[in-house]
Amino acid sequence: MLAERVARLNAEYARAIDDDRLERWPEFFTDPCLYKITSADNYRRGLEGGLVYADSRGMLADRVAALREANIYERQAYRHLVGLPAIQSGANGAVHAETPFLVVRVMRDGSMDLFATGRYVDVMVEEGGDLRFRERLVVCDSSRVDTLLAIPL
Amino acid sequence: MLAERVARLNAEYARAIDDDRLERWPEFFTDPCLYKITSADNYRRGLEGGLVYADSRGMLADRVAALREANIYERQAYRHLVGLPAIQSGANGAVHAETPFLVVRVMRDGSMDLFATGRYVDVMVEEGGDLRFRERLVVCDSSRVDTLLAIPL
Amino acid sequence: MLAERVARLNAEYARAIDDDRLERWPEFFTDPCLYKITSADNYRRGLEGGLVYADSRGMLADRVAALREANIYERQAYRHLVGLPAIQSGANGAVHAETPFLVVRVMRDGSMDLFATGRYVDVMVEEGGDLRFRERLVVCDSSRVDTLLAIPL
Repeated sequence: MLAERVARLNAEYARAIDDDRLERWPEFFTDPCLYKITSADNYRRGLEGGLVYADSRGMLADRVAALREANIYERQAYRHLVGLPAIQSGANGAVHAETPFLVVRVMRDGSMDLFATGRYVDVMVEEGGDLRFRERLVVCDSSRVDTLLAIPL
Repeated sequence: MLAERVARLNAEYARAIDDDRLERWPEFFTDPCLYKITSADNYRRGLEGGLVYADSRGMLADRVAALREANIYERQAYRHLVGLPAIQSGANGAVHAETPFLVVRVMRDGSMDLFATGRYVDVMVEEGGDLRFRERLVVCDSSRVDTLLAIPL
Repeated sequence: MLAERVARLNAEYARAIDDDRLERWPEFFTDPCLYKITSADNYRRGLEGGLVYADSRGMLADRVAALREANIYERQAYRHLVGLPAIQSGANGAVHAETPFLVVRVMRDGSMDLFATGRYVDVMVEEGGDLRFRERLVVCDSSRVDTLLAIPL
């Protein structure tokens, strides 16, 4: 069932990030792909610029390598809560969905804060039996997300 | 499947509010209906008084008009995360459900806070092929929800 | 359907706690069982020690009795938001799942804070027509969860 498959993809995506298995992250995308983090303001105004941009698995992998080098994950952890998706089937078997999310950041000293909220605007396709993201636009509600960190959202 | 339809209704309801398509909000209800925001304390004690009360689509539309006039949505945005519903089928095809929720408020300067948590206590009926709320009681955990704003929850 | 049954169990579990029907809490477990609250750090390092440990319904009931005596629930309430589960079927009909969660604490004065985030690492079995937890490991992201309270998570 489609709704269940979309839910499972979202659950596995979030788990890979939260369990610090970042090297698995590019595999959730087709190659080429489109991954972009932007703000609701920019998205509404149709502005192309995003905080983060990648259009291939290679670029996603580069980002993971940069995060590893900066030891970001030694210092903090994340917890994604992913909400109910609104799903639409599109042309050529592509699946369009919008899904709200909330991310909490947990610092090494144990303190927690609301890191980001927003919605995923996705285009998914089937590839080799798996559902993958051809496009994942991460539209953050706040325009003040900590962009230097550039953690996968 | 019932669980899926309830999930979809909840997802669309939250999306309409979070995407600032408030004019669509009354359509999720039957006419007449019952929409009430109350606190867990009041709900437990069986008190009728609520922070917000509407018993028709017209009253819901009036509320939206008031929010538009006050430009509330120029100054802040909301993000609903809706949890897993506990569903019971009732008499005459009515569906009863309780569903937890959490709402984050995002201010124009980018700061975020936990705005409200609680549960929806719902009675839904089918109408013209759609599931709609005949009753939606929004039972907030905290009694300190900012009532002046009276944002749809 | 398995995914739906797991979701329902999680929804009812969270509801029993959040509605302050704690006496119902042990019934979600088999007897004997394993219930443990631990931190992601300890879990990753394979350390056995947990903040809370119970291996029978009796021990779970004792914990509830202690909470009642301390009147914890007079002073605060909780709201669980439970995310999408990643489910695997195991040997002998046991169901393994990992499910993210977020818990908000609501104080009597109405203030709210993020109390805990993490994931449930569960083993479930069918017993008398119901799905029950044979094991529920509550792996908190932060190691600074308020352990004195020892609220069911």
